[in-house]
Amino acid sequence: MNIEEFREFGKASVDYIADYFENIRKIDVISKVEPGYLKTKLPENVPPTGEPWQKVLQDVDRVIVPGLTHWHSPHFHAYFPTANSFPGIVGELFLSGLGCLSKDWDSNPACIELEVRMMDWLAKILGLPGEFLNSSEGPGGGVIQNAASESTLVGLLCGKQRALRDTLKQHPNLDETYIIPKLVAYTSKESNSSIEKAGLLASVTMRLLPTDKNGSLRGDVLLEAIIRDKDDGLIPCCVVATLGTTGSCAFDNLDELGRVCSNGGIWLHVDAAYAGAAFACPEYRYLMKGIENVDSFNFNPHKWMLVNSDCSAMWFKNTKDVERAFKVKATLPKIPSFKPELEHWQIPTSRRFRALKLWFVLRIYGIEGIQKHIRQQISLAKFFEHLARIWGLSALDLGGEDSLTQELLDEISRRNKIFLMPYYYREKLVVRFVICSRFTEKSDILYAWREILSLVKHEEPYIHNSDKDFTNGKSESQDAEKKNT
Amino acid sequence: MNIEEFREFGKASVDYIADYFENIRKIDVISKVEPGYLKTKLPENVPPTGEPWQKVLQDVDRVIVPGLTHWHSPHFHAYFPTANSFPGIVGELFLSGLGCLSKDWDSNPACIELEVRMMDWLAKILGLPGEFLNSSEGPGGGVIQNAASESTLVGLLCGKQRALRDTLKQHPNLDETYIIPKLVAYTSKESNSSIEKAGLLASVTMRLLPTDKNGSLRGDVLLEAIIRDKDDGLIPCCVVATLGTTGSCAFDNLDELGRVCSNGGIWLHVDAAYAGAAFACPEYRYLMKGIENVDSFNFNPHKWMLVNSDCSAMWFKNTKDVERAFKVKATLPKIPSFKPELEHWQIPTSRRFRALKLWFVLRIYGIEGIQKHIRQQISLAKFFEHLARIWGLSALDLGGEDSLTQELLDEISRRNKIFLMPYYYREKLVVRFVICSRFTEKSDILYAWREILSLVKHEEPYIHNSDKDFTNGKSESQDAEKKNT
Repeated sequence: MNIEEFREFGKASVDYIADYFENIRKIDVISKVEPGYLKTKLPENVPPTGEPWQKVLQDVDRVIVPGLTHWHSPHFHAYFPTANSFPGIVGELFLSGLGCLSKDWDSNPACIELEVRMMDWLAKILGLPGEFLNSSEGPGGGVIQNAASESTLVGLLCGKQRALRDTLKQHPNLDETYIIPKLVAYTSKESNSSIEKAGLLASVTMRLLPTDKNGSLRGDVLLEAIIRDKDDGLIPCCVVATLGTTGSCAFDNLDELGRVCSNGGIWLHVDAAYAGAAFACPEYRYLMKGIENVDSFNFNPHKWMLVNSDCSAMWFKNTKDVERAFKVKATLPKIPSFKPELEHWQIPTSRRFRALKLWFVLRIYGIEGIQKHIRQQISLAKFFEHLARIWGLSALDLGGEDSLTQELLDEISRRNKIFLMPYYYREKLVVRFVICSRFTEKSDILYAWREILSLVKHEEPYIHNSDKDFTNGKSESQDAEKKNT
Repeated sequence: MNIEEFREFGKASVDYIADYFENIRKIDVISKVEPGYLKTKLPENVPPTGEPWQKVLQDVDRVIVPGLTHWHSPHFHAYFPTANSFPGIVGELFLSGLGCLSKDWDSNPACIELEVRMMDWLAKILGLPGEFLNSSEGPGGGVIQNAASESTLVGLLCGKQRALRDTLKQHPNLDETYIIPKLVAYTSKESNSSIEKAGLLASVTMRLLPTDKNGSLRGDVLLEAIIRDKDDGLIPCCVVATLGTTGSCAFDNLDELGRVCSNGGIWLHVDAAYAGAAFACPEYRYLMKGIENVDSFNFNPHKWMLVNSDCSAMWFKNTKDVERAFKVKATLPKIPSFKPELEHWQIPTSRRFRALKLWFVLRIYGIEGIQKHIRQQISLAKFFEHLARIWGLSALDLGGEDSLTQELLDEISRRNKIFLMPYYYREKLVVRFVICSRFTEKSDILYAWREILSLVKHEEPYIHNSDKDFTNGKSESQDAEKKNT
């Protein structure tokens, strides 16, 4: 393909994508294909000679789009939002087009320096403490990772290594092989499965602690577990707190957990993958009270902050900890041209120029645009609450048996007008309703609510009012709604 | 930004990228900026309100491009190739544009099914044994990971868990905390630093074994190390073999290593990140002799096979092993609609639709186009060899002191006509010369060679002739060259 063909193909694809979004309301949210549908649609081998791009574009339309679950349909209320925006798409086109990776600074000065600056921009937008900034005097800093799961694993490995070092310092007679199997970490039962997985991958026992009735992990529960483990000769090394759980958007009590961790010298990692974006609006920052005791903090701009996947933002209070856990002896003893050396804060050894799309999104939206997006989506969730008395990413309990809930969901899927997912919340099957697409409007909420109501044949649904129960945030979010309208 | 503005911005960006490549020869390969250059060029905060896209595009030109190291310049011979192609760029635009993630099949049937098919296409292109295919009767299969570093970590964790299970089966009286600290893994001294890093992250001792004079890890060296460790009560769990080392593109003796691993029940992971793409040409497949004893195999289409980063291909002989190591109890006990469940073969819990760009590249190039690209780049390396008597990604030893080599490199960097990197090869500083850009032509090799020669003030450079020493591949690659011209 020569440059002129690339211009044509690229522009035709921009138009295809634009048309796709122009028509997104007309497309059924769930794909109608059956498992294995692709088998007969594509040959079993790579074509021996190249095919024209026009044929490939036709096949996107013929083979791919009919097999998509449309995450950006305004009727998609399942899983979680995955960010998408026009500046984000073009940002990705640019970073992929220029195609310059980075390892150390010399391999791509623009990539490293823009990422350093963008992570500071983001930290300031969220109101994180200054010590997390790359530009701070101290050892704090931020970096873009691939995924929240990866960030959790990175945080846990930092905690593991720090506990190992600290224990060796206190007990120089012990050795690594004695200490490592005794390390233990904690999270809540409501935390994402990726946290339990991080424990599995890091060979660190991950205790899933019970939450209070609002889905929040509390300090006393954590402290009790730590004391029990210490009595058994184990070594607590890490706590993973969740701000915005997957099931019901519950917030752990960071303030209480932070004090326990700080007193015990235990690494505190925060998984705010989804809900962290809301801290761009000052009125929600009370939910991260206690942030000053956090060692690493992660949220995904690629979930709720309009930056196309992948872009998972992670900060460390002390980046020396991650370097100690991740840096191996360099092949070439070289003085770095520029600090920080982001390549030692991650699992891969090179990085894509993801800062570019973050820059595009932050500039073209501005603080105002980002805040407007967050507030609008919360106001839509509040409108659903107004209809159904629930708030945000929350749980709709149909009151009856789990099987009735499952029946309702099956029927909703079969009709394919909206897409919802179930979740076990406190041992009960509930329906999650998430505002996902940035195209979702008030009329779409009404549409979804009518669809649900039309199918609830039994009693009136009981709603977990997370506004009161989980977040105590009603007045703040209502204020936000007022400001936004 | 509305849809019409997106069309304009997108198309202007396609043109910008096309112009960039049209002019790539005119740009100095290394950026002239000084460390910290970006500080004064961008504000310290996100703009309060959104900015027009035209201003952002101007700033790409003003701030970003001058700070790039141009990985696709035909004069870039440093690090390793990072793939880039027009079909790959448009593929990335599409996957980012449609913006549909996947977790399980229901979340995006097209993504899962295309990835399953594309990994089979790729396996067939490389001539991997049929048991690695997703469509095989057995438990084998392939998946796209983010990076080779990640694939190595995944392979190592599989080996760790399998050894743990096997040991527990043989010695039911032992427990996990006794076994895990005794696990040990092996790789060569010439392997990429990411392999040592994987050992650090997985808390598995990674032994760096010496190679033969060609940079190749041999079976007897491995066997000796294993016997020694077993005598010391340790438990060998994994070997990471390299096909194409970073320093000199040496190939471990997979046949010998495979037999040792197979006899000892030790997981064998292959890191063929860069050189694996060459197996698309049957004449290089002799270098993967012994592949039938491999448990996991990884190569990066995003290095040398024209697919824009990230796209790291990984296959397992038995995917049950990775599921045992990676799968945590599901939140919802759900029967999967479709197998394989790719989400349990990786660290993150969701995946981008990367199969799409792989599909674009494989179709628009075809087998013929892929092979032509590989053969052309090898023929260019052979032309450099013809000039300098070296082959492929190889090592140029200036014969004198390391300081002379460093001086030469500094002078080359200062002049900024070509970009080369040093490497310690068998304890000696040598110059690596890599064919990276797909735009590199014969005239560029001449250009580079003249540049090097003009600066070599001392004795005639001595060349490690890897063609004879490392690969025994002269006749095959010369044949390839003939076919290609």
